[in-house]
Amino acid sequence: MKNLKGACMFAQSGGPTSVINASAAGVFIEALSQENITKVYGAAHGIKGILTEAFYDMGQEDMAELELLKYTPSSALGSVRYKLKDASVDDTDYKRLLEVFKKYDIRYFFYNGGNDSMDTCNKISKYMASSGWDCNVIGVPKTIDNDLFGTDHCPGYGSAAKYVATTVMEVNLDAKVYDTGLVCIIEVMGRNAGWLTAAAALANAKGLGADLIYLPEVPFDMDKFVNDVKDVCAKNNNKCIAVVSEGIKFADGKYVGDFKASATDLFGHAQLGGVCNLLSGIIKEKTGLKVRGIEFSLMQRCAAHLASKTDVEETFRAGREAVKAAVSGETDKMVCYERKAGDAYEIEYKLLPLELAANTEKTVPAEWIINNGTGLSDDYVAYALPLIQGETEAPKVDSLPRFAKLKKVLATK
Amino acid sequence: MKNLKGACMFAQSGGPTSVINASAAGVFIEALSQENITKVYGAAHGIKGILTEAFYDMGQEDMAELELLKYTPSSALGSVRYKLKDASVDDTDYKRLLEVFKKYDIRYFFYNGGNDSMDTCNKISKYMASSGWDCNVIGVPKTIDNDLFGTDHCPGYGSAAKYVATTVMEVNLDAKVYDTGLVCIIEVMGRNAGWLTAAAALANAKGLGADLIYLPEVPFDMDKFVNDVKDVCAKNNNKCIAVVSEGIKFADGKYVGDFKASATDLFGHAQLGGVCNLLSGIIKEKTGLKVRGIEFSLMQRCAAHLASKTDVEETFRAGREAVKAAVSGETDKMVCYERKAGDAYEIEYKLLPLELAANTEKTVPAEWIINNGTGLSDDYVAYALPLIQGETEAPKVDSLPRFAKLKKVLATK
Repeated sequence: MKNLKGACMFAQSGGPTSVINASAAGVFIEALSQENITKVYGAAHGIKGILTEAFYDMGQEDMAELELLKYTPSSALGSVRYKLKDASVDDTDYKRLLEVFKKYDIRYFFYNGGNDSMDTCNKISKYMASSGWDCNVIGVPKTIDNDLFGTDHCPGYGSAAKYVATTVMEVNLDAKVYDTGLVCIIEVMGRNAGWLTAAAALANAKGLGADLIYLPEVPFDMDKFVNDVKDVCAKNNNKCIAVVSEGIKFADGKYVGDFKASATDLFGHAQLGGVCNLLSGIIKEKTGLKVRGIEFSLMQRCAAHLASKTDVEETFRAGREAVKAAVSGETDKMVCYERKAGDAYEIEYKLLPLELAANTEKTVPAEWIINNGTGLSDDYVAYALPLIQGETEAPKVDSLPRFAKLKKVLATK
Repeated sequence: MKNLKGACMFAQSGGPTSVINASAAGVFIEALSQENITKVYGAAHGIKGILTEAFYDMGQEDMAELELLKYTPSSALGSVRYKLKDASVDDTDYKRLLEVFKKYDIRYFFYNGGNDSMDTCNKISKYMASSGWDCNVIGVPKTIDNDLFGTDHCPGYGSAAKYVATTVMEVNLDAKVYDTGLVCIIEVMGRNAGWLTAAAALANAKGLGADLIYLPEVPFDMDKFVNDVKDVCAKNNNKCIAVVSEGIKFADGKYVGDFKASATDLFGHAQLGGVCNLLSGIIKEKTGLKVRGIEFSLMQRCAAHLASKTDVEETFRAGREAVKAAVSGETDKMVCYERKAGDAYEIEYKLLPLELAANTEKTVPAEWIINNGTGLSDDYVAYALPLIQGETEAPKVDSLPRFAKLKKVLATK
């Protein structure tokens, strides 16, 4: 536990969310208020921005714009997908990071991301320590996938889940509007965890949900899927809504979506398209019904207009807590949420060793998956419903979002 | 001009919108308050519900639920795509309609839909008149396509345009997040009119729009498209956002989307997918860049959570005006909006002969399409921006929409 004085560096990594910038706002606003933090830097495109000395002096920004980051989707500083090698294999990047940290007197490092980013964060933390450069390193979690180990839930999940639940309710009404049959297949993100797909069950709890929900936690069987859809159609006037995770896998572990690459069109061009495109084609052939495939695509992770106030506030606070922890001498930890016991939803902010958070995927508990692998239990709804609560006060101009506009003044030494 | 006393029938037709039920609320609430209207019926699945005597007694509904229809997407009574034949060719349906109208003493008929529905409405009006059955018939417009002749804009357009503009802004931020290239191709509805696709220009006006916008009003040239994308990528760090209408056509009049049907996957199944899938494949091949195709799919017409308050209020009022007009003796007309001159946005409710509204598509004026067919002028923005203004007071329960729940009590005679 070392109390340090010097500059801090914050970087964003991995796929963005509609609230990832709320963490940035929390880190920046808290760091700018800390006496022991002499400069506040924000890296362009994550770790790459540090390696190339492309980072911004956040002290030059207007406080009002930093506040607006709470309501601004995507990674305001730019993101990156860059996995550091083990330092024992190749320490080139680490040496360069150390050089930059020394050059700018960086004594605090905050990395905002998912599993891979926590791994990166952990590696940097270990390297700095072993190099004798005092630097407190804290991971700030984010992922719509909700698959980080050691935290009740992940910043970003509540807002994405709210998008999925709300949109499934709206699509449910639209997809039932005609007196003719329609199978609607909706594809949701989440990689190898079914958390976000499960959010369709929140719509079910309001009576306007999906007939079938398929998570990656359950091996996917194409024949069973076709029969499931047929069964629903038979009972339900040839109407069926199925929500599938992008990460569903066959029993042999192969992704269902990997079949898509082979498709070509008239011009001989490869056809793009995800799992829902593939399944839509199969259901159309096997049932003869009209089928509509819908990908929630980027919208599920960038629809800040539908963010959960709870998520935004927690995510902002997670950023502040990261800074407070680092200043108080903590290092090599990730901020996490612990849900308090009791009926009323409340969380505490805790710290978890980074090595526990890194590279472990938390999936949906098997006992919450019911209806022969096509539904979620009330336990899931009780878990997830508090996370989507409240509407934000995101400002609008001309009834369109007013997102943060940063000056992005490059730091100089 | 005949002042009639008797029952009224309301029916919804064609593709739903996120505010189509606001017209229903307007018709029902106004009709229930009119002394000369003895019964208020709502047809299940449009004209089919009348032919089969499947319609609801709207007087049985709770007023609070009828009010909630303002905020409930999709057609609450169910919709239909059914084109009446000319009575001179086959009058079977017309005879049946007359039979039902007589049986239930229907003296007012309101049909809510787009071009085709106004045609249906017109045919019914003419047939009733020629059969000597006094019945005042008024069309209530709706379409996200905004392509109805004789009205400044169409109920439903403002809300769908707001969805498109807001979502393009959000996607714009997300699609630029990495330091690697990405071409994002977004497909928007609108049939043969580019109005809804043009709404991406509202995002452009806020600095977070599309680099390229393609409307059906301009013949689509694949080579030019590929070059347009390459040009943007060359200037813009290999990033490009293109928004295309589902209805774009080649110079020979063939729909670009019709190429999709030929694609098959590994299993030999036909691949579904729209224009953006096709264009994504081509751009991927021609540029080697990462490409993401996004269809706004049903969301653009059912995202009631993002509806325009202006649109909801006007649409509700359009329903009321239809009833008032009919009760005052008008028939064979469609309610339409006339924009008043002057800086402040204001509309008047007028009536247009149905035969003028039927089957004529209003497209985007050529002089508003700029940048060699890839952008919209400020005149479009000035036209469309007032239509998306304001947030509705749609109620939520548990931070999810609380949509109207109708009893749907079948009418009996």
